Amino acid sequence: MEKLRVDLGERSYDIKIGEDILANLGQYLSELEIGKKVLIISNPLVDSLYGAEVEKAISEAGFEVEKALIPDGEKYKSLDTAKDLYDEAVAAGLDRTSSIVALGGGVVGDIAGFIAASFMRGINFIQVPTTVLAQVDSSVGGKVAVNHPQGKNLIGDFYQPQLVVADKKVLHTLEERELKAGLAEVIKYGFIWDEEFFSFLKDKREEVMNLDTQAVIKAIKTSCAIKAEVVEEDETEQGLRAILNYGHTIGHALEAVTNYDCYRHGEAVAIGMVAAARIAHKLDMLTVKEVKEHEELISDFGLPIRFEGVDHDQIINALTKDKKVEDGVIRFILAEKIGKVKILSDIPEAIIREVLAEIGGE
Amino acid sequence: MEKLRVDLGERSYDIKIGEDILANLGQYLSELEIGKKVLIISNPLVDSLYGAEVEKAISEAGFEVEKALIPDGEKYKSLDTAKDLYDEAVAAGLDRTSSIVALGGGVVGDIAGFIAASFMRGINFIQVPTTVLAQVDSSVGGKVAVNHPQGKNLIGDFYQPQLVVADKKVLHTLEERELKAGLAEVIKYGFIWDEEFFSFLKDKREEVMNLDTQAVIKAIKTSCAIKAEVVEEDETEQGLRAILNYGHTIGHALEAVTNYDCYRHGEAVAIGMVAAARIAHKLDMLTVKEVKEHEELISDFGLPIRFEGVDHDQIINALTKDKKVEDGVIRFILAEKIGKVKILSDIPEAIIREVLAEIGGE
Repeated sequence: MEKLRVDLGERSYDIKIGEDILANLGQYLSELEIGKKVLIISNPLVDSLYGAEVEKAISEAGFEVEKALIPDGEKYKSLDTAKDLYDEAVAAGLDRTSSIVALGGGVVGDIAGFIAASFMRGINFIQVPTTVLAQVDSSVGGKVAVNHPQGKNLIGDFYQPQLVVADKKVLHTLEERELKAGLAEVIKYGFIWDEEFFSFLKDKREEVMNLDTQAVIKAIKTSCAIKAEVVEEDETEQGLRAILNYGHTIGHALEAVTNYDCYRHGEAVAIGMVAAARIAHKLDMLTVKEVKEHEELISDFGLPIRFEGVDHDQIINALTKDKKVEDGVIRFILAEKIGKVKILSDIPEAIIREVLAEIGGE
Repeated sequence: MEKLRVDLGERSYDIKIGEDILANLGQYLSELEIGKKVLIISNPLVDSLYGAEVEKAISEAGFEVEKALIPDGEKYKSLDTAKDLYDEAVAAGLDRTSSIVALGGGVVGDIAGFIAASFMRGINFIQVPTTVLAQVDSSVGGKVAVNHPQGKNLIGDFYQPQLVVADKKVLHTLEERELKAGLAEVIKYGFIWDEEFFSFLKDKREEVMNLDTQAVIKAIKTSCAIKAEVVEEDETEQGLRAILNYGHTIGHALEAVTNYDCYRHGEAVAIGMVAAARIAHKLDMLTVKEVKEHEELISDFGLPIRFEGVDHDQIINALTKDKKVEDGVIRFILAEKIGKVKILSDIPEAIIREVLAEIGGE
């Protein structure tokens, strides 16, 4: 088992990464200073695969375990579902020393974290992410939220977990499309922070995609380490943390315009990273070769680098409604080279439209 | 205008206290680093009294002001009202640099603060409390929340405002009962922290109750200073902060058992402080004289020191359901002398019942 520490003062915590470590959850929880009551929040599919194992591990360590399931899907990451979960938390008799364990992907982690952050003004929170995306991104760094009909993650908090347990084993039950989409965020870390990691992914593409234990654990650990480093420097997104949104500006707009039912998040981010690379090229920040390296790596991982059938005006429109817009200014994260990005505002709309025309021919 | 600083590192803020200072709100807001958009949250009554003045002051300083009103009353401090307010925040086009101004009493401040804490993971929050209770207690210290049908403030956060503006002027439009109830929390600060303040309140009772400017501003400022000192030491209620709940253990139980429609919060706390004093006496912590000093001061401020018609079993039952219960242990805040309290667990039920029999003859 590999261990990473996220260093946030009083809010520091460990990320444990390994193969077949769910069975140790009871022991891990015993090492935390938490009360006896634990509420697991999961969804029916994940619960059918790993619920029993997790529940057994935790209860055998002497905890009183209750479970609440929420329907699968982004549209259930809502205030209405949160309301049901507060009821479950009350029914389970949780108190301030109790804990919520999120067993699932990003939706489960985000909403369970929002409940943990707000129930009794904050109780213990443990993340057991079961997708690549959740293991390398959403479970680390403390962003928790539910959606508002007018925007994703509009209602949320920064709330750090006490522990993250990423078991590589669970990735074997992911659908291939889900797996690939999650790897978009892994690739992102290479582009924004670590050229060496970019090269590793290029070299070990096959091992990673075939879920070779060593390669996958290295990919997860490196991703988490980069995210931790960024979050340590800027926990509440005052500046640096925004670089984690590389590819997300266009990506989010693409998801919003297609009502979140066409692209997986990672697929939209993949296209968004290509768009960002091309914008950077037009601003003389990236060479043609570096743009090509973006597209090749993304494409090699089975992810899209083009889109079609989406109105460009709608994308431009969605950009201005993004949560990350501040006093009317749209921010882009653009690369100066592979492994280094910066945050820019005031990208001319004409350049954005040129790039949309290049990669999203209508 | 008097100024108090609440020192919480990055989350520090000023409390401005004075007579007729609402008109300066625009200037105060201009001194903060905040965006142009401001959403005022208030209720119809307060809005009819002070809404126009506040809106004018803020918009004349160059801010774009929108307003959202919520119905008056504790039962509207709910997740349903919060949902409406998120819609209003979206409709107002708030972004991460925007601000929410809470103009009202505890209900408005608590729910507006919860919205500010969670909208886009936290936007700027300014408290303009319009009751004694809100000026000396709920607007300071960052406790924000909505109620759950099963318990008050079950859903919330610790979220500090950027500024608190307490204008003594607004207290003149309070109902007398509301005014007195608020003073219960003022008296509380004398009991828990400051014997001199206790003496001041004893001597200047008439001036305070007649809203003499100098006496009231001193009472508000001293109360806020004590609360700030406690919160600075223990922002998230890990220990010391619990002393602010003096009188609240029995007080909350009394409110809950009577469905929150019999006692004002301050009235229940007044009775709760008498109960706490009597429990402390039975544990040889307070003398008979000190118990009498409790009862006299509370009673002199026109607040109840006895209750009737409430089943004691139900009170005992409600005590064990309080949010402050941890792993089954009920905590009491008890005084060792006037001006000094400590936190105790495991008070024998028999003693609690004896005291209930003394002050709440059925």
